[in-house]
Amino acid sequence: MPELRKDPVLGRWVIIATERAKRPSDFEVVREESDSASCAFCEGHESETPPEVYAVRETGTGANEPGWEVRVIPNKYPALDVEGQLDREGVGLCDMANGIGVHEVIVETPAHDQQTSDLSAEHIGKVMMTYRQRIVDLREDERLKYVLIFKNQGRSAGASLQHAHSQLIATPITPKRVKEKLDGAKRYFDYKHRCVFCDYIKQETELFGERLVAETTDFVALSPFAARFPFETWILPKRHMLDFSLVEDGEAADLGRMLKRVLSKLRKALNNPPFNYVLHMAPYRRPRGGYWTTIEDDYHWHVELIPRLTRVAGFEWGSGFYINPTPPEVAAQTLRETEA
Amino acid sequence: MPELRKDPVLGRWVIIATERAKRPSDFEVVREESDSASCAFCEGHESETPPEVYAVRETGTGANEPGWEVRVIPNKYPALDVEGQLDREGVGLCDMANGIGVHEVIVETPAHDQQTSDLSAEHIGKVMMTYRQRIVDLREDERLKYVLIFKNQGRSAGASLQHAHSQLIATPITPKRVKEKLDGAKRYFDYKHRCVFCDYIKQETELFGERLVAETTDFVALSPFAARFPFETWILPKRHMLDFSLVEDGEAADLGRMLKRVLSKLRKALNNPPFNYVLHMAPYRRPRGGYWTTIEDDYHWHVELIPRLTRVAGFEWGSGFYINPTPPEVAAQTLRETEA
Repeated sequence: MPELRKDPVLGRWVIIATERAKRPSDFEVVREESDSASCAFCEGHESETPPEVYAVRETGTGANEPGWEVRVIPNKYPALDVEGQLDREGVGLCDMANGIGVHEVIVETPAHDQQTSDLSAEHIGKVMMTYRQRIVDLREDERLKYVLIFKNQGRSAGASLQHAHSQLIATPITPKRVKEKLDGAKRYFDYKHRCVFCDYIKQETELFGERLVAETTDFVALSPFAARFPFETWILPKRHMLDFSLVEDGEAADLGRMLKRVLSKLRKALNNPPFNYVLHMAPYRRPRGGYWTTIEDDYHWHVELIPRLTRVAGFEWGSGFYINPTPPEVAAQTLRETEA
Repeated sequence: MPELRKDPVLGRWVIIATERAKRPSDFEVVREESDSASCAFCEGHESETPPEVYAVRETGTGANEPGWEVRVIPNKYPALDVEGQLDREGVGLCDMANGIGVHEVIVETPAHDQQTSDLSAEHIGKVMMTYRQRIVDLREDERLKYVLIFKNQGRSAGASLQHAHSQLIATPITPKRVKEKLDGAKRYFDYKHRCVFCDYIKQETELFGERLVAETTDFVALSPFAARFPFETWILPKRHMLDFSLVEDGEAADLGRMLKRVLSKLRKALNNPPFNYVLHMAPYRRPRGGYWTTIEDDYHWHVELIPRLTRVAGFEWGSGFYINPTPPEVAAQTLRETEA
């Protein structure tokens, strides 16, 4: 079973994936599978993956058969193990726990050679509804504290398979970055009695406009004021919503339109860059009272999208401080002016 | 002038390098200069760099002439501007400041084709003493709150020049990651009345030993218990020391021996990997009283070294949670057994 270990100074958890222990020679091999004949994510290859946990399918087709549009399967090499209870123990002054959790793959299309931005807006909307289904379904598992849905596209963004897919990792602890975001939003709310994300959307759309990338009925896409990376882009729902489970069908469809537009702009403006996007929302377990009293009002889910154009180096690792050579206003203008 | 901007939720600062605004086409060009005939860091090319601010030189040679062993110059394309005072202002609900600070390059050797691990232990010791000289010298500048010394080797670790060099960036604010480390060490001290780093060194050398990589008179090298990355290695002084300015000459020389040993082991075990290392120490400005009362006792400088073998992807960006496929015990054993 994988292990969860905590840094005794920073309180940062890591997953030590003990079962696939990498020895030095393993890092020589660059995995890149782009041959559709051998791709387990392709239609017709359903038996090569673990049994599906959910799929958007044509009526009349059965589980693990062709006829699907979006398909969710357990990761064949999961970072966390689905069986067991969370046991914590001390190792000298350090802390560890067994690595339980959920690791799933959302295969976005049966076709091998389509990137997300090649899919129709309607189809991307169905991928978004699939995200929502998984989030709602896994919430029932009391062991899970947080679910993170993310996408890596391109080798230098960490993708080892070319076929368009997203991933879901649900963890038995709330990750550090999430706690920091919640804390920041709560501090603002305690001071202002308003949601920092709602205020920020209002400021960027009504007061400034220079960092606006795109707008649909229900969403805005922005270059964040303190962007860490060139062309970093956030997508936020205009309606105040704590987490993704609250997204309505019409909003999921509109998010499909927004994602297609933003991904197409980035692809055209930046020559099809590798990228990551991450869905940020509130944790699953929110005890009543105390710290959590205002969370329905103070947090607001959103998507962070990072094209991988620059390399993170010693300064960033050491300081948590980023050097961004592209002002967000320049990035936003470029993306606004890119027809896609 | 560059800008410092703060994320309104996370409180994370970024440097927006406005003067070298990158447009999309700039990301196409891969800079890699390995031709010694055109390398400004080489001996004999001193006039091609900004005038040196410090050098370890043969007696009788003059500034900006050949005859040096280690040479410090201002970065020709600085991320921060040395002139001015820190002015903060609000932009709607966001915060920004002008990007003042110091950005220097420490050229580690006059020879073009030597990696750090090719240099003699004695020479690396002189590089360490140069770090110390810069740290002590810049402390006099009241505008500077923190100094970060780091090294990027190899293109995928962020180095754009091949000639062996380290960098120094001094900032007018204390970076977020540093604050988090200080907070964690203080929490431990407030509870235990002992330094967490001293306790950790004792545990790893006397109680466990399985994560020990190397040991010299004054230093230990360890695979950290909660390593984020395969073969991540920390080097810590055995003697309790708040910051690098307190390092004695004998200790700097011993650190040269330790760095040569660790870098040589990594080079041999991992086929000359790209890497970053970062020197972590306490901030410059520490007002008396309150929060800072115990800092001399609770913080302990150290070096974090990260071979760049895996790619940071969506999960890590989204969560601050890392997946490490190599257990630190396996990494440490491999490095212990690598003769170098």
